[in-house]
Amino acid sequence: MLIENRIKELNIMLPENMKPGAMYVPVKVSGNLLFVSGQIPSINGKPVYTGKVGKERSIEYAKEAARLCIVNMLASIKDYVGELDKIKEVLRIQCFVNSEVGFLEQHIVANSASQLLYDIFGEAGRHVRTAVGTNQLPMDVTVEIEGIFQMKEESYGERKVL
Amino acid sequence: MLIENRIKELNIMLPENMKPGAMYVPVKVSGNLLFVSGQIPSINGKPVYTGKVGKERSIEYAKEAARLCIVNMLASIKDYVGELDKIKEVLRIQCFVNSEVGFLEQHIVANSASQLLYDIFGEAGRHVRTAVGTNQLPMDVTVEIEGIFQMKEESYGERKVL
Amino acid sequence: MLIENRIKELNIMLPENMKPGAMYVPVKVSGNLLFVSGQIPSINGKPVYTGKVGKERSIEYAKEAARLCIVNMLASIKDYVGELDKIKEVLRIQCFVNSEVGFLEQHIVANSASQLLYDIFGEAGRHVRTAVGTNQLPMDVTVEIEGIFQMKEESYGERKVL
Repeated sequence: MLIENRIKELNIMLPENMKPGAMYVPVKVSGNLLFVSGQIPSINGKPVYTGKVGKERSIEYAKEAARLCIVNMLASIKDYVGELDKIKEVLRIQCFVNSEVGFLEQHIVANSASQLLYDIFGEAGRHVRTAVGTNQLPMDVTVEIEGIFQMKEESYGERKVL
Repeated sequence: MLIENRIKELNIMLPENMKPGAMYVPVKVSGNLLFVSGQIPSINGKPVYTGKVGKERSIEYAKEAARLCIVNMLASIKDYVGELDKIKEVLRIQCFVNSEVGFLEQHIVANSASQLLYDIFGEAGRHVRTAVGTNQLPMDVTVEIEGIFQMKEESYGERKVL
Repeated sequence: MLIENRIKELNIMLPENMKPGAMYVPVKVSGNLLFVSGQIPSINGKPVYTGKVGKERSIEYAKEAARLCIVNMLASIKDYVGELDKIKEVLRIQCFVNSEVGFLEQHIVANSASQLLYDIFGEAGRHVRTAVGTNQLPMDVTVEIEGIFQMKEESYGERKVL
């Protein structure tokens, strides 16, 4: 439980009972690749960070939102694979920032997500990344982040992977 | 031909002779991962759903557009692999919705794509998903969707995979 | 050194010493999949193509920007894997174009990236692609492109792959 202990040391609590979406799922595995749906900054299914950066929202606000997306991402993975030590590497995240035209620091917002993954997974947490702006996100959330992870062992779509 | 029969039962006709783009291709395979280019709601190569949701277009219009993107995606895959029963799982879709600022239901638009994949592939059709807005899509199409699928057998880039 | 000779024949010079980002990296490998971070049209770390197409920037300007993104992508890969002949195929690119509403030719901008990959890699350079607009990119760059490549041999996250 190395990774989950590290998460506790960082005073982060992973939410439980992440509900899957309608006809889509939070996590799907193919071989040792684990794909995660776009995560939003929600608590108990309700968006808690909304609005555009560069307009009504500050960059600090957006960075908190990005961190919450990562927390929800890890909770979704844990719910699927059982324990986060089954993750070998973070491969890629894609970060969409709900932006007013003229806000040019989507990469700084994404840095808070990248930093958190590094704080939790160490070197294995370094990943490739794309950070872009968008004129609108669902439910007006401030940030949405999807991810691809590498698992230590292979699986092919079964719910229980090891 | 289970999947294609299911598509017929749903009264969906897959278009034929999907033309590849200029220097890019509709489908490319690596191992058992099958990647599909961003699909637009076109018929015979012409966009048929255009304009922004939240402005001149309704959410119902956008949902039809999303369904047509999925139909074109499956036609592209069939054209490449020969028959859709070679698909084991839908892994991931990413859905871009041409949005007016203030339209907050990109996820509802994407639900129609997710639902159609589930109707066709059943449990294997459940996938991870990212749905976001954008201020502009090529040729002003209302929706663009890309996909990643898992094939039953491996292949490495050959045109004929089995 | 077939690929690098081809790059020289095209009078393209790959930059060296691509610096990794803060807590993320330009390239990460899983098996024979190689993921590349979103690349921007920068030289020596400074954005050199900025502004929106359809407003202050022409489509030709954006096409040059897209080509520079690809050059930087290949430089990042070379820096990571040592030589570009280790690449077997280009699998997928995703191209974001900083767009004014009403600019409808993101796919034409992306074509210049696709063409360059084809010119360099030949048939192996054909890839799937998604091209979309966005209302804002980091540092106001005109284009951002991420990529997935297939390597000839497998590796699992080590820095030196062969």
